[in-house]
Amino acid sequence: MIVARNILRLASGVLLGLATLFGVASARAQTDPLPSWNDTAPKAAIVSFVKKATTENSPDFVPEPERIAVFDNDGTLWVEHPMYVQLAFALDRVKAQAPSHPEWKDTQPFKAVLENDIKTLAASGEKGLIELILATHGGMTSDEFEKVASDWIASARDPKYKKPYTELVYQPMLELLGYLRANGFKTFVVSGGGIEFVRPWAEKVYGVPPEQIVGSSIKTQFEMRDGMPTLFRLPQVNFIDDKAGKPAGINAHIGRRPIAAFGNSDGDLEMLQWTTMTGGSVRLGMIIHHTDAEREYAYDRQSEFGHLDEALEAAAINKWTVVDMKADWKEIFPQK
Amino acid sequence: MIVARNILRLASGVLLGLATLFGVASARAQTDPLPSWNDTAPKAAIVSFVKKATTENSPDFVPEPERIAVFDNDGTLWVEHPMYVQLAFALDRVKAQAPSHPEWKDTQPFKAVLENDIKTLAASGEKGLIELILATHGGMTSDEFEKVASDWIASARDPKYKKPYTELVYQPMLELLGYLRANGFKTFVVSGGGIEFVRPWAEKVYGVPPEQIVGSSIKTQFEMRDGMPTLFRLPQVNFIDDKAGKPAGINAHIGRRPIAAFGNSDGDLEMLQWTTMTGGSVRLGMIIHHTDAEREYAYDRQSEFGHLDEALEAAAINKWTVVDMKADWKEIFPQK
Repeated sequence: MIVARNILRLASGVLLGLATLFGVASARAQTDPLPSWNDTAPKAAIVSFVKKATTENSPDFVPEPERIAVFDNDGTLWVEHPMYVQLAFALDRVKAQAPSHPEWKDTQPFKAVLENDIKTLAASGEKGLIELILATHGGMTSDEFEKVASDWIASARDPKYKKPYTELVYQPMLELLGYLRANGFKTFVVSGGGIEFVRPWAEKVYGVPPEQIVGSSIKTQFEMRDGMPTLFRLPQVNFIDDKAGKPAGINAHIGRRPIAAFGNSDGDLEMLQWTTMTGGSVRLGMIIHHTDAEREYAYDRQSEFGHLDEALEAAAINKWTVVDMKADWKEIFPQK
Repeated sequence: MIVARNILRLASGVLLGLATLFGVASARAQTDPLPSWNDTAPKAAIVSFVKKATTENSPDFVPEPERIAVFDNDGTLWVEHPMYVQLAFALDRVKAQAPSHPEWKDTQPFKAVLENDIKTLAASGEKGLIELILATHGGMTSDEFEKVASDWIASARDPKYKKPYTELVYQPMLELLGYLRANGFKTFVVSGGGIEFVRPWAEKVYGVPPEQIVGSSIKTQFEMRDGMPTLFRLPQVNFIDDKAGKPAGINAHIGRRPIAAFGNSDGDLEMLQWTTMTGGSVRLGMIIHHTDAEREYAYDRQSEFGHLDEALEAAAINKWTVVDMKADWKEIFPQK
């Protein structure tokens, strides 16, 4: 181990020397790491935060292992309208599974899904939603679910943009993820959505590996099946990673307090509080405010889909940065 | 992000070139990365596995992000006798908390603890143990618990060796952790013990950061206290990361199947099965067999503390490597 460590030390020393020699450091300073961000306050806040956290011998310096950044997913990293992507997945799964569930024709909320009756579906509320999730996400092994989710995400298309959902991720946020990682941060997704729904594509799309995804989950059970070990997904809720659940999920998975948090709704309020309200080191809290009806959507407390209310109030009090998508982002989606 | 990526690519290219230039690669090949391991079968199995997994263009090559190795803690990375370290912690906590719990004088299993009546304590079984854990590990914030656990681990001494428990870690396993990491593996601890008990010292002792610890846990609840966000530890079991719980814990935290697993008891059986019994790439399963009564302890199925039975049978069937501590390890503990 000591040998390995010494090699690493030697390597990083050599690297640092070379970076200076070849002018990499100065080239880097001249190249904008956040080209899709306009030169407005949020970009300045990000760059200033990263400089503070990474400048050695400064009072705000944060050692690399403690540079943890957490990102909500729906509405923060990718589009959440006209409905959460995972809900679109669940509705498609109900339709695909319906032939083996004749009883769904007469049972809510399944009946509403099969009849495309979104109003009745919405009226079934959180209880109905959880019923749909358990019926479509449970009852199979973890390997089977991963395949079902991967296949769906590869073929499904957003109804407005007619594109795969994985192309409807926010280009400025991709740049931000990369910028933080280039500065020694570990980036985590902390989603209200299902952990197993996000994992199959997050590494490719966000550069975030499965072990850095935190999310809602259902219970799994280890079983030997035909002599092979399997994890069977039970139709039982294990954990809801939303609102007050987010700090608990962060603590369970990460085990230390993040120094930066990015969200877009009241579901992210407690995560932002947990990250920023501390006597500790420099912190960054940021809320993505959907203000761009032309390029994407505009909504907050007044909107039908509105769920950014309390967190927007808290932003002013806690000095969280609010991103005005229309004014602060040059691009919304990656240009292919 | 693209700029950052290119810099990283440039850097790693330069580095590779330099490694050859300066002869680092050949120096490395000549230096034994596992000096505390005798040149017996287990060391050969480890080195062969790592070579296979890391040799590009070989049929057994495993891409770096998939190089996940999981380690049980008690009895695999540190001493578990005469009792689990965490149990010693719980007993000390009962004694420390007793003044504010006069009722414990007449309530089992607390009475047994206060009277050092290990026999009655043992008779209280798993139910009694969980009662002790909840009473001593719950009822405070996560920050408070971290301090209590850290303070205890810094001051407590093992009764036989008269040393801090963090010095009673196995030197060969420390070398193994480092060797795997130097070869692009991510190392995780997957403990039946409490995740919050292991995290405060695992980074310093094992080089494993908090986010790579999987373990048993109690429920936490987010609360604002005096205007500050806190996580309060409820006296309720959340998850038991033992036996069939280990694959579930691995899936919840890591989200992909490990390619190497290290354990020492029947509690690790399912983790070893989950890791190795698959049609996938090259795998390594290893059991640490405590055979050294002189330098440490000797126990398995026959012993009073014995709990290595079914997993030892399974080792023969599944071709897991069994480490004979007496024959295969030159050193047991780090020499300071």
